[in-house]
Amino acid sequence: MGAALDRLLEGVAMPHRIHDLAQPMSNGMASSPNHPGFRMALLRRHGDMVRDDGGSAANELIVTGGHVGTHVDALAHVSQHGLLHGDVDAAAAQVGGRFSRHGIDEMEPIVGRGVLLDVAARHGVAELPAGYGIGSADLEDAAASEGIEVRPGDVALVRSGWGAHFADAERFVGAASGVPGPNEEGARWLADRGIRATGADTIAYEQIPPRAGHRVLPVHRVLLVEGGIHIIEVMNLEGLAAAKAYEFLFVLAPLRIVGGTGSPVRPLAVVPE
Amino acid sequence: MGAALDRLLEGVAMPHRIHDLAQPMSNGMASSPNHPGFRMALLRRHGDMVRDDGGSAANELIVTGGHVGTHVDALAHVSQHGLLHGDVDAAAAQVGGRFSRHGIDEMEPIVGRGVLLDVAARHGVAELPAGYGIGSADLEDAAASEGIEVRPGDVALVRSGWGAHFADAERFVGAASGVPGPNEEGARWLADRGIRATGADTIAYEQIPPRAGHRVLPVHRVLLVEGGIHIIEVMNLEGLAAAKAYEFLFVLAPLRIVGGTGSPVRPLAVVPE
Amino acid sequence: MGAALDRLLEGVAMPHRIHDLAQPMSNGMASSPNHPGFRMALLRRHGDMVRDDGGSAANELIVTGGHVGTHVDALAHVSQHGLLHGDVDAAAAQVGGRFSRHGIDEMEPIVGRGVLLDVAARHGVAELPAGYGIGSADLEDAAASEGIEVRPGDVALVRSGWGAHFADAERFVGAASGVPGPNEEGARWLADRGIRATGADTIAYEQIPPRAGHRVLPVHRVLLVEGGIHIIEVMNLEGLAAAKAYEFLFVLAPLRIVGGTGSPVRPLAVVPE
Amino acid sequence: MGAALDRLLEGVAMPHRIHDLAQPMSNGMASSPNHPGFRMALLRRHGDMVRDDGGSAANELIVTGGHVGTHVDALAHVSQHGLLHGDVDAAAAQVGGRFSRHGIDEMEPIVGRGVLLDVAARHGVAELPAGYGIGSADLEDAAASEGIEVRPGDVALVRSGWGAHFADAERFVGAASGVPGPNEEGARWLADRGIRATGADTIAYEQIPPRAGHRVLPVHRVLLVEGGIHIIEVMNLEGLAAAKAYEFLFVLAPLRIVGGTGSPVRPLAVVPE
Repeated sequence: MGAALDRLLEGVAMPHRIHDLAQPMSNGMASSPNHPGFRMALLRRHGDMVRDDGGSAANELIVTGGHVGTHVDALAHVSQHGLLHGDVDAAAAQVGGRFSRHGIDEMEPIVGRGVLLDVAARHGVAELPAGYGIGSADLEDAAASEGIEVRPGDVALVRSGWGAHFADAERFVGAASGVPGPNEEGARWLADRGIRATGADTIAYEQIPPRAGHRVLPVHRVLLVEGGIHIIEVMNLEGLAAAKAYEFLFVLAPLRIVGGTGSPVRPLAVVPE
Repeated sequence: MGAALDRLLEGVAMPHRIHDLAQPMSNGMASSPNHPGFRMALLRRHGDMVRDDGGSAANELIVTGGHVGTHVDALAHVSQHGLLHGDVDAAAAQVGGRFSRHGIDEMEPIVGRGVLLDVAARHGVAELPAGYGIGSADLEDAAASEGIEVRPGDVALVRSGWGAHFADAERFVGAASGVPGPNEEGARWLADRGIRATGADTIAYEQIPPRAGHRVLPVHRVLLVEGGIHIIEVMNLEGLAAAKAYEFLFVLAPLRIVGGTGSPVRPLAVVPE
Repeated sequence: MGAALDRLLEGVAMPHRIHDLAQPMSNGMASSPNHPGFRMALLRRHGDMVRDDGGSAANELIVTGGHVGTHVDALAHVSQHGLLHGDVDAAAAQVGGRFSRHGIDEMEPIVGRGVLLDVAARHGVAELPAGYGIGSADLEDAAASEGIEVRPGDVALVRSGWGAHFADAERFVGAASGVPGPNEEGARWLADRGIRATGADTIAYEQIPPRAGHRVLPVHRVLLVEGGIHIIEVMNLEGLAAAKAYEFLFVLAPLRIVGGTGSPVRPLAVVPE
Repeated sequence: MGAALDRLLEGVAMPHRIHDLAQPMSNGMASSPNHPGFRMALLRRHGDMVRDDGGSAANELIVTGGHVGTHVDALAHVSQHGLLHGDVDAAAAQVGGRFSRHGIDEMEPIVGRGVLLDVAARHGVAELPAGYGIGSADLEDAAASEGIEVRPGDVALVRSGWGAHFADAERFVGAASGVPGPNEEGARWLADRGIRATGADTIAYEQIPPRAGHRVLPVHRVLLVEGGIHIIEVMNLEGLAAAKAYEFLFVLAPLRIVGGTGSPVRPLAVVPE
């Protein structure tokens, strides 16, 4: 038993960098119109109520959603013809205002191997064009040029370069201009490799043509419903890409929201230096 | 560079268990009266709006606070005589409705060594008495009997057994009966060991006598203001205790809430089997 | 046409008092455990962002529910055997996450005759006993002793005296001790008189025995489902009672929340002096 | 005493129409980027939890702000050079996370004379041009052509025609195109007449030039800070205008939010037919 722990503690004792793969959460940040906007307001500030001993506490009220900011989708998020992953009846699983099956609390936290497929770099561009569909050849070429193999149980992160626009909400959400993302073929390529989760640096993890809205979501169907593969959206992959860190220890710990369809998260990549 | 990553990936490839150290988040759960109660409501359920292709999405609206459920305190949370940790002026740091210094977004995510100090087990009880103050002798005895050393940079988790009462909100919050927790002396003992964070299975990480309210918080002052040491509250340490897992790889990734005073979290302990 | 307006404007030009029939809304106020607690937090305070011209604005974030504080129930709030008032199918009316029928936006605002039935005064007590059921004789006696007739189209307000306890949340909600309120017979007596709405100074407009919870709500069934009569809860009737104002112009303007099951309100009584 | 009440009850017994002056509140509705967006989500739907007696209740979680949808501004909303209306120190009035002076709970509910100044109709247009400033001549001409006098204590409603665009959030908010509204001169003309409140059918009750943002708000200073006159925004005045109802009984009952800077409202106009 000691051997595994020794390995882990030895690993984190060596020089390494923890890459933060989350975008910052703040009032007015980019958000899909289908979801609540993020709001944080201080209920109490220091000085509002100072105790006799000179101490004072500040705290806040937070409004968010399960799919706001950097977040992960539970399998309960999407159904097809009334069924969730594994032919679970979606209507029957909605019990008492939450999901009794496939809620985000059923997702196993992840501490395991992650890989980066930097499709933008492979194309030699800062970012893929708006509306571009990332297919299997894009993913295969990226992996090959990085010398990386995607293995069963991995978390595969797909970079379009779009994360650099997060602060420009209109462009990032791309209602008018569109957003690049994996297409159905690309999603199947990932699913065929047996990954457990995949993420991207865009709002929807879908190819969104200009003015198309979020009306048809084939990739969500392929991954969540058919594959039982979790999707992480709105990631910040710029640091990993700059460091050319294509393989890492990936950590993801969704909030334990009982019966929720997703959770804001702070994904991490541990990269030796 | 490869060596560290190899160690980490080897470690997680060996048999291990990931202990979930968070309590579940659901409507009506135990919460301090000083903070908003947690609420999650589905905005859309499957069937509400089915697209032409048979697909449907469900999502939610979430209301919470930075100190609701299992959570970690930012250094901005508590001030003493108008000063945050490092003599930062608390009033001046409250800029534009959030903290420009010591917000939770400044806290480094943690992937490192964690230890459990099971004080309840050391006392041979399921749980410490309500209102009990955990002092330096309790912590030292627990460490000694477990054969564990608390080292600089560690995360030290202190178990009172109180986490087993989480589902009984009245008892867990303990307004009438009190709650056990580290006292000022115990907090100093931990701070003297150079830990970077500490957590417990209670609502306040303080000794709360019956009917005392949360009026004086000396441990928060010692740890957050004086020590710059983060506090994790409302943890579930029952699984670790049952497994007698006293040393582990500890993972904590607070949400990246800009200028917030705390964040709900899902702390994990990776324990070899 | 001018005559009616002249009457109204003449009326409000004469000496009168507007009685505020709402309880104050503030953080931590009494609230049913079935509903979200009220929270208000300032997003911006004066000084946070001062414009070049010296101006500054403050504003807030509010979390509430349709049945929080002084509020009115829409007919969509309660169903019996799957049916809303008028045999509307409850499941079918839940469209897109809100009610397509009997939502609070369908309730007509009220500017009309209101009457107070001060049952506590009739009993010669400051407040009715916890758990007391207000029946038809109580209502009839109160009306008779006040010289008031309850007429079709009226709004009938029933006073138990319980509103004086609003600031003591535990007592007001009465989980342990119970709360007085109209019983089924009392509700039928009111419904038989053709009123359009009725209100009370308690949390539930029901007779709640000690430790009974809010498990069976016959009065809601009689009024909302069978009668199509709106219910106003958590009213402050102390001022009207002190002024012995038993007849008045009653005003109620629910927020126009599309498809909501209720709304916080500020009911008013215009009473000549 | 009876005379005034008789007048009021006689008035409401005659044929009349209650005009709803509020816009509907629903998810995704037009909202200023400075304020939280409105969200309503059902916590429970009928069928989620059916009691033994066949009864079931539905209820919701609501997120809003004091300045969301049709709403009224408290005097605490705006300060100039650190002072609220009546030279109240703004910083000192911010106590414990809310306003101890000039909060919306200090505003008197209104049941009194209201007048409509239909500036769009006076110009012979469906709506005033984007960015148009409504001055004293516009208001004086509108009043004269309607045969209406603005008197002390009145509520004066100013129509630009912009309310017809409420469902088109982008146009209504007018970030790019601008929005018409009273200018400083127009506001002074109203203040000079001793009104107690004024409202309009736009997002900001200010002249907003294209791409100007909400950066300088002279009308708010003139009315709220200097005049102590409440401002009602996002009104629906289309029905009143169509009915050419220029004088009416106006009713406004803000929620009793302790220390809030504003409140969503449902303003009403009682108009004889």
